[in-house]
Parts: sequence; C-alpha cells; structure tokens
Amino acid sequence: MTEESLTRRLAAEALGTAFLLATVVGSGVMGERLAGGNVALALLGNTLPTGAILVVLILILGPVSGAHFNPAVSAAFAVRGAIGRQAVVLYVVAQVLGGVAGVWVAHLMFELPLLQLAGKTRFGPAQWLSEFVATFGLLLTIFGCVARAPQAIAYAVGLYITAAYWFTASTSFANPAVTLARSLSDTFAGIAPADVLPFIAAQMAAAAAAAALARWLWPPRLG
Amino acid sequence: MTEESLTRRLAAEALGTAFLLATVVGSGVMGERLAGGNVALALLGNTLPTGAILVVLILILGPVSGAHFNPAVSAAFAVRGAIGRQAVVLYVVAQVLGGVAGVWVAHLMFELPLLQLAGKTRFGPAQWLSEFVATFGLLLTIFGCVARAPQAIAYAVGLYITAAYWFTASTSFANPAVTLARSLSDTFAGIAPADVLPFIAAQMAAAAAAAALARWLWPPRLG
Amino acid sequence: MTEESLTRRLAAEALGTAFLLATVVGSGVMGERLAGGNVALALLGNTLPTGAILVVLILILGPVSGAHFNPAVSAAFAVRGAIGRQAVVLYVVAQVLGGVAGVWVAHLMFELPLLQLAGKTRFGPAQWLSEFVATFGLLLTIFGCVARAPQAIAYAVGLYITAAYWFTASTSFANPAVTLARSLSDTFAGIAPADVLPFIAAQMAAAAAAAALARWLWPPRLG
Amino acid sequence: MTEESLTRRLAAEALGTAFLLATVVGSGVMGERLAGGNVALALLGNTLPTGAILVVLILILGPVSGAHFNPAVSAAFAVRGAIGRQAVVLYVVAQVLGGVAGVWVAHLMFELPLLQLAGKTRFGPAQWLSEFVATFGLLLTIFGCVARAPQAIAYAVGLYITAAYWFTASTSFANPAVTLARSLSDTFAGIAPADVLPFIAAQMAAAAAAAALARWLWPPRLG
Repeated sequence: MTEESLTRRLAAEALGTAFLLATVVGSGVMGERLAGGNVALALLGNTLPTGAILVVLILILGPVSGAHFNPAVSAAFAVRGAIGRQAVVLYVVAQVLGGVAGVWVAHLMFELPLLQLAGKTRFGPAQWLSEFVATFGLLLTIFGCVARAPQAIAYAVGLYITAAYWFTASTSFANPAVTLARSLSDTFAGIAPADVLPFIAAQMAAAAAAAALARWLWPPRLG
Repeated sequence: MTEESLTRRLAAEALGTAFLLATVVGSGVMGERLAGGNVALALLGNTLPTGAILVVLILILGPVSGAHFNPAVSAAFAVRGAIGRQAVVLYVVAQVLGGVAGVWVAHLMFELPLLQLAGKTRFGPAQWLSEFVATFGLLLTIFGCVARAPQAIAYAVGLYITAAYWFTASTSFANPAVTLARSLSDTFAGIAPADVLPFIAAQMAAAAAAAALARWLWPPRLG
Repeated sequence: MTEESLTRRLAAEALGTAFLLATVVGSGVMGERLAGGNVALALLGNTLPTGAILVVLILILGPVSGAHFNPAVSAAFAVRGAIGRQAVVLYVVAQVLGGVAGVWVAHLMFELPLLQLAGKTRFGPAQWLSEFVATFGLLLTIFGCVARAPQAIAYAVGLYITAAYWFTASTSFANPAVTLARSLSDTFAGIAPADVLPFIAAQMAAAAAAAALARWLWPPRLG
Repeated sequence: MTEESLTRRLAAEALGTAFLLATVVGSGVMGERLAGGNVALALLGNTLPTGAILVVLILILGPVSGAHFNPAVSAAFAVRGAIGRQAVVLYVVAQVLGGVAGVWVAHLMFELPLLQLAGKTRFGPAQWLSEFVATFGLLLTIFGCVARAPQAIAYAVGLYITAAYWFTASTSFANPAVTLARSLSDTFAGIAPADVLPFIAAQMAAAAAAAALARWLWPPRLG
C-alpha cells in the first residue's frame, strides 16, 4: 500500500462519514421541522435517508477505503488483521473529523448556529443495551456479508440501519464517530456530550463480541 | 453433516429468530410510542424494519442454516427431504428459544417488564384465513425463489412480509415460532396466548398446501 | 409448448393476479382503516405493499408464465409474436378470474361482504390521461427491461408502480384486469363499474403507443 | 455514432426527463392534496416516487443515452470526453424540452392550468449551499458508480435522491433542467423563476468540483 493510496483511503473515510452525518443530522432537522410534532413521522424522515445514503456511500467508497465510516468497524477489522495498526488510527481520525464536518455542513444548510452542544439526554442501562444490540447486529451484518455475501454488503448495511433506527430504544447510533459528532448538534439527532462515553463503551464491547461470534459462525471457506 | 456444523446451524436459527423478534416487537413498541395514536404510522414503523431485517438476516445466515427462522418453513423443507427429521426438531426448538429471547431483549431495551403475556385478541375465521393466505404466500415465495430465483430470496422474503403486514387482516404472523414468542409480549405486536393455536394450525395447513402447489408449479429443471 | 405447460402458465397468471388484487384491495382497506382520515397515509399503506408484492410475484412466477398479470401486457406481447393468439385469450381469462378471486379473498380477510360494486367515481379526461400515462410508462418499463435489463425487471416494475400510484391523478390502475376486478370492491381501491370502460380504452391505447415506441427505442441487438 | 442513433439518444433524454418531471411535480401535487397539511407526509409522498422512477428510467434508458436527464451531468461527462461537444448541447436542449413537457403533463393529469409560474421563494446562501452539496453528492454517486460499481448505478442514483430530498434544506433539485422546468409549476415542487439562476450556478459549480475530486478518488484501473 503506497502513501498516496493511504491518502485516498483517508479522504474516502472522511468524505463518507461527512455525508453520513450531514444526512443523519440534516434529515433529522428536516423531519422534525415538517412533521408537525408527530415524532414517528420525523423518525421516518430520518430513517429512510440514512439507510439510503449508506447504500450509496458503501457502493462508491467501499472500493476505495472499505467504507467503514465507523471506528468500531475499523477496530474490528484491525483485530482481524485486515487493516494495519497505524492505518486504523488514521482511519478513526479521518472518521471523526469527517463526521464533525458533516454535522457543521448540515447546520449551515439549515441556517442553524454552526457550533452547538446537544442537550438531549440518552442515558441508562436500556439505552446502553440498545447500543450494544445495535452495534452487535451491525458488525454481524458486515462480517457475515464480507464472508458470505460480499456483493450485497452495501444494501445489507443500509437495510440493517433502517431497521435498527426503530427496533432499538436509542435509534441505533452504533458508531463512535457518529456518536461524537452528534454530540455537537442540538437537534433531533443530538446526544448530550456527557452521555457519549457509555454509548461508545457499549459499542466497542459489542464490536468485540460480534467479532468473536463471527469468527466461529462464518469460518473461512476452503478452496 | 458433522455434529459441529449442526451446532452452528442451530445457533444461526436461534440468533436470526431472536433478531427477527427483537425487531418485530421493538419496532412495534417504538412505532406505537411515537405515532401519537395514528395506527397506520405505527404499523408503517413496524413494517419497514421487519422487512429490512429479514433481508439482512437471510443474506448473512442463509449460507449457514438456510435462514428458516420459521417452523412452518423447516417442516416444509423436511417433507421435501431437504433437511433431516432430527434436524427439523432441533431447528424448531432453536427458533422458539431464539424468538423468546428476542422478545425479552426488546422488552429490556424499551424498559418494559421482562415477563409478559399478551392481551390482544386475534380470533375468528377472518384472522385465520388471513394467516392461511399470509403463510401460503410466504411459502410460495420461498419455494419459488429456491427453484427459480435463488439469488433474490432474501429480498423477496423481505418484500413479501412488507406487503403481507398490510394486505392481511392479521398483519401476517405466518410463522409458528413468531406467533408463540409474540404471545409473551403485551405490546403492539402481541397476540393473546389463547389465540395462538388456531393461528399455528392455519399456518401449518397453508404450508402443506403451498408445498403441494410448489411441487407442481416449479418442477425440477432438467440439466 | 405442451398442453400441461400451458395449464401451468395459466395457473401462474391466475395466482399472481389474485395475489396482486388481494394486496391492492386488502392494503387499501387496512390503510384506510388505520390512517385516521389521512388519505396520504392510507395511500402510502396501499403503495408500498403493492410495489413490494409485484417484485415478489414477478420473481417467482416470471419464469413460469412471464408474469404478465395484465391483459394490456399480454396483448402487447402477442402483437410482438412473443405469445400465441390462443394463449393470449386464455391468459386474459385467467387474469380476470384470478383478479376477481383476489378481491374476494381480500373481502373475506377483512370481514367485508363478498359481493360488492364500487361506488367511487373515477371519470373525466384528466383521469383518462392519467391512465394513458401510467400504462404507457409501465409498458415502456417492461419492454425496456426485456430488451436491455432483463435481470432487473421485477424490481423495475415494482418501483414503477410505487411511483405511478403518486404521480398520476388516478393512482395508476394501468391494467384492464385490475380495473375490472377493482369495480367489484366498494373500498379504498374501488372504481365504479360505469367508469371501467374508458379506463380500459386509455390503457389499451397506451399499450399500443408504448409498443410502437419501444420497437424504435430498443431495437434488437445484433449478436 | 450515426445520425439516427443520436436521434434515439435525444429522444431517450427528453422522454426520461419528461417522466422525471411528471413524477416530481405530479407526486408533489398528490402528496400535498392528500397530506392534510402535514408537510412531512407530503414530502414523503414526493420522495419515494421520485427515487423509484429514477431507478426505472436509468435502467431502461441508460443503455440508450446514458440516462443523464441533467445538464450538469452531461456537462461533466463532456469535460471527461465521454460525450461530444455538439451532443452535449443537444442533450441539454432535449432535457429542458422534455422537462417542461413533463411538468405540463402533470398539470393536465391533475386538472391544473397548463401554463404557470412558480411563486415559491427558494433564495439565500443556505439554499445555495444545499444545492451545492446535493449536486456534489449526486455527481460523486454517478462518477463513483461508473468507475467502481456500474451495475448498481440506477439503484444508487435513486437512493441518493431519496436521501437528498431530506438532508438538504432545498429538497435537492441538483439539476438545471429540473430547476428550470419546476419554475413553470406553482405547486409543491415549484421554484420562483427569479430564484432559478443562483440554483443553477451552485449546481454547475458543484459539478465541476465533483468532477475534479472524482478524477483523483477513482483513477482508471489498469488492465
């Protein structure tokens, strides 16, 4: 892997995470503004765009960087040896910076103050279990597709997140970079900065558990 | 088939049915909580996640266990000789246990009492006909895809259930393990325990009818 | 083509059209009952199932009969010589009988009187233009996919109808058998019997126009 | 490229842009009429059909003309040398004429005055940034798919627009021909004629930026 191609991979991670966050935050604002107080409608207007953009981003950036957009995913691939130690650190930096940039672009598009801190509390064991389940399922989706259905991975991840927005009580952050970036937006998708760390802990624990289960569930195929 | 690979298949059936039920019950709770009394919105918030997670689960677990998640499907494949007699019994046990676990995880995520019994009555000939039609169509979808469009089976099953939630009066359980597990949740997706048996009877009758029709409709293609 | 395989094709046409109509009428009833008077929600609950079931039915029955489910499609294929004269008549009979059966199954599932006549007026040049446009687009979708993207035809038709429910003022019947069958249901999806004939005329005119354009737009590719 | 085949390509561009605009405007009218004042529902009824029809149109017309339906796309491909200078001018003319025709067909289907001018103001830096972001993402989607996932381009574009309707504050026009045509409709999808030019400027700037980034991000793959 040459230096230049690492640059390209990092650009892809930053760009993809930026578009992901602009979509999560932007469609959250749009949904809440238009839904007339009906939160189910606002969440629907937040869910469909997020699932859809994930399919697109993985299709076009997957061939460049793997399209992780998620430190938990990068860490899990690093444990597997699919990505180097130094690369994973740079990936995470690119994801966080890209995510923050995406949040800020959403704020600018919707004429909101650029710099914000979220006030929405997301705290307690039920929320943390939700994040564990959400991330556990996301990582199984990714590992399962990589092992057995690689051509479908973009669609599978988009559909998984579409489901997880509704079947978990936390609406499924499932991503430390996304969690961090969303703490900088006091909108529909926000999370209070004080609540970020336990979310990330639950996500990383789930990634480790999923990686272990995946190794057993989808062993390498011979031949 | 070695012992260990049967273990893996049973784990896949339990895991998949657990995620399916967590999605059905969890998104039902989420939909009802957020929809402000509009049942169509609640059902929409229940439908899209269920269809989406089915696509994902079949993509990643199909190569492991066949991704039945449904005793009616396992029984129908057993009649065809595609799965052994002993395996089918173990499959059903795994599906029921997984389904119950999924319901309980949903309860925990949404801070509901773990142990519940559903109070929602789903009874009468129109409901049973709905379950017959729903299961008949589901099994035809599966058999038709296995015979003529195997690469599309995950998408077809997800889309079929998306439709069946709305075109049947029962919102399409179409699955004895799902029916049993949903009797343990007094939420949007629940079914009173007393109403479970006729649902299962209608589902098994439909599976038998669909299996017979499928044999005639999609005969094996000669080489 | 042997006698028996024609039987199988006719069964596929009847079965598919029955499921299509059960979905159109059933999800219309479900949507209207649950939507609390919001017609956009009812139409959404009608649209998504119809598009989804079409994908499924074309995937599993396409390899048997071509999955027309639509006299305008069968007629257009007959003009092209892709299906025989006698077969097209039998196809249409199977489609109409199947469609009526599907409507009645929907009525039974939703505890409605079996025999009904629709009271909903759908009349006037704007409606007829809508049906012309809807059918013209549907036939172009089918012919274009047959010629240039055969692997995508099921998805394309499902997506086309999903769009056409909303961009035409008639919600896109685009199918004489569907139109006839829906005149027997005094529900969300109904059409007054007196309004059926001009709808069918517009649909057949559009099929002829689309067939002519398609011949020019997608000429056979040389080997 | 022979004269006749250029005619066919121009017809495909006009036809596709006409169906695209008929869908954007028609489903906007339908959504607004039925949504009972809930703008989120109206936008949902506008979004899903637009995304769906784009998939269909690209599947069936892509093999004929490339399925640009968008002067910014045609211009970007011209810069790349993928389409000739004269062709690009004719493409744009066909797109604009087709787009206007599509708007008028929608007006006729919904019994609205044929000739209208939009009154809806869409003005200011936040709107222009939205159009820059929307078009930048659309062009990256197209270039990325052309380079790395050509079989998925129709689905990717449809999903991208589904997302962009919600994550941008302008609901994502992202297309100069669409912008011009929508200025002729005083409906949900309209844009005041005075606001058209800055939208187009933002779109063309984004196309140039995306083309430059795409060249670096997805270099040609060697043999």
